[in-house]
Amino acid sequence: MIIGVIGLGLIGGSMAVDLRKRGFAEKVLGVESDRLNAEAALKIGLADEIVPLEDCVAGSDVVVLAVPVDAATRLLPRVLDMMAGTEKVVIDVCSVKEAMCKVASGHRARRQYVATHPMAGTEYSGPWAAMPGLFDGRACIFCDVEESSPKAVKLIESLYDTLNMRTICMRSDAHDMHVAYVSHISHITSFALALTVLDKEKDEKHIFDLASGGFSSTVRLAKSSADMWVPILAQNRENVLRVIDTYIDKMKEFRGAIDGFDEARIRELIEEGNKIKRIIR
Amino acid sequence: MIIGVIGLGLIGGSMAVDLRKRGFAEKVLGVESDRLNAEAALKIGLADEIVPLEDCVAGSDVVVLAVPVDAATRLLPRVLDMMAGTEKVVIDVCSVKEAMCKVASGHRARRQYVATHPMAGTEYSGPWAAMPGLFDGRACIFCDVEESSPKAVKLIESLYDTLNMRTICMRSDAHDMHVAYVSHISHITSFALALTVLDKEKDEKHIFDLASGGFSSTVRLAKSSADMWVPILAQNRENVLRVIDTYIDKMKEFRGAIDGFDEARIRELIEEGNKIKRIIR
Repeated sequence: MIIGVIGLGLIGGSMAVDLRKRGFAEKVLGVESDRLNAEAALKIGLADEIVPLEDCVAGSDVVVLAVPVDAATRLLPRVLDMMAGTEKVVIDVCSVKEAMCKVASGHRARRQYVATHPMAGTEYSGPWAAMPGLFDGRACIFCDVEESSPKAVKLIESLYDTLNMRTICMRSDAHDMHVAYVSHISHITSFALALTVLDKEKDEKHIFDLASGGFSSTVRLAKSSADMWVPILAQNRENVLRVIDTYIDKMKEFRGAIDGFDEARIRELIEEGNKIKRIIR
Repeated sequence: MIIGVIGLGLIGGSMAVDLRKRGFAEKVLGVESDRLNAEAALKIGLADEIVPLEDCVAGSDVVVLAVPVDAATRLLPRVLDMMAGTEKVVIDVCSVKEAMCKVASGHRARRQYVATHPMAGTEYSGPWAAMPGLFDGRACIFCDVEESSPKAVKLIESLYDTLNMRTICMRSDAHDMHVAYVSHISHITSFALALTVLDKEKDEKHIFDLASGGFSSTVRLAKSSADMWVPILAQNRENVLRVIDTYIDKMKEFRGAIDGFDEARIRELIEEGNKIKRIIR
């Protein structure tokens, strides 16, 4: 099978590597608008060729849209236009799904599109961030599968099977709400932590000296790229605002307990938070 | 040299292990008030004997106070009372230093006390959390060293040398401010994140399914023990409140930019936060 990957960054590049290594793809056609990224992707071996978008769609059985969600919403209708009347299938891998499903809605080739979100990643981006095994054992969410043809869904299930992912089906609006709570807010809290520390500690030497492992892991996501995260936060605006509000309330509860010398309440809050142990190993 | 360790948890236990393995301690006398922890510590081999406090101080050359900071402020004057007139040295390893230095201030044996904060740890606690190599390559802060005798400081420097730590000297009030910014706030943001997600996602299955590696690392510190963190937050109240306020301001800046569809501002905030890359590898 020939796989076209539009956007050879962390996610697209890592998919390309494992799909080829594990025999699902006999060939990978890449589309990459950034010249440096394109050259690097070829050199690293993420794709066999870098081709224009039209040639990628024309030459591939499955096209993977692996660009930030603002670009993906623009590209999806174009790709569907090119695919209409063929057996080809297109998927996207974006962290926001309602907007993607909306732009595809009513398209004559809608059933050739499968909306997916493989829940894996690191704080790095670009072709040099791609790595084998990135998806192994993680969850992949399929959204609004009733809008896709069963044949297309089955093909994409076998693609994610190859990547050793468990698949979960969900409505796109429910997906966007859940990922706001479990994924998007973690990024915002990390960015805010980085901003706080950079603001307060003008002397970077102190941050470096005093940063324990705890700080490093909590602030890790603050290295994430603006190109990816600006459109995610903008497109998942309603859900993200709601979860930020809850989060600020929780911070204020801590603040109130500490301010009021209320050690019993600090303890309650910490022990309530500790319950995350039951869920996250 | 005989080392007495009061509190055989993560920090005290890990110190005991490496100090003996690396030949600094020929024997470790442990004090552990919790029966189960005491038995576990002996079985794991963190200490040679579990003894009462008085016997530990009487039998040791160096005593390490490795209990939560509220217990440590109560114990330090008692230990100094017992040590007065001897060559013995006591250190503490607490994350808040001003209160510790205050309770020792003016004590006739003050110069036998060295206030230290080895910046290492994990989110786990108890003797089973102790591990060799925990301190290797990390920073250890010495506070108000001019209050300690040069001989005591030199001895404790060689103790931390054995643990492969870099030592940094700082005033205790400056220490408490810096750790609030770089360490204590990370814990509060993790607790608040756990509380937010647990509050919003009543269905734990969803958290489990959707938790990416990013969420897990950001929320990791929320597993930290209340016994340790309640007294830290209470004793470092002023600094912690100040940093929470800055943090809430940063969250509100994000909220405002997202609410106002201001993608340029979201980008600015993210790219400003990205600067943490320069400092944290």
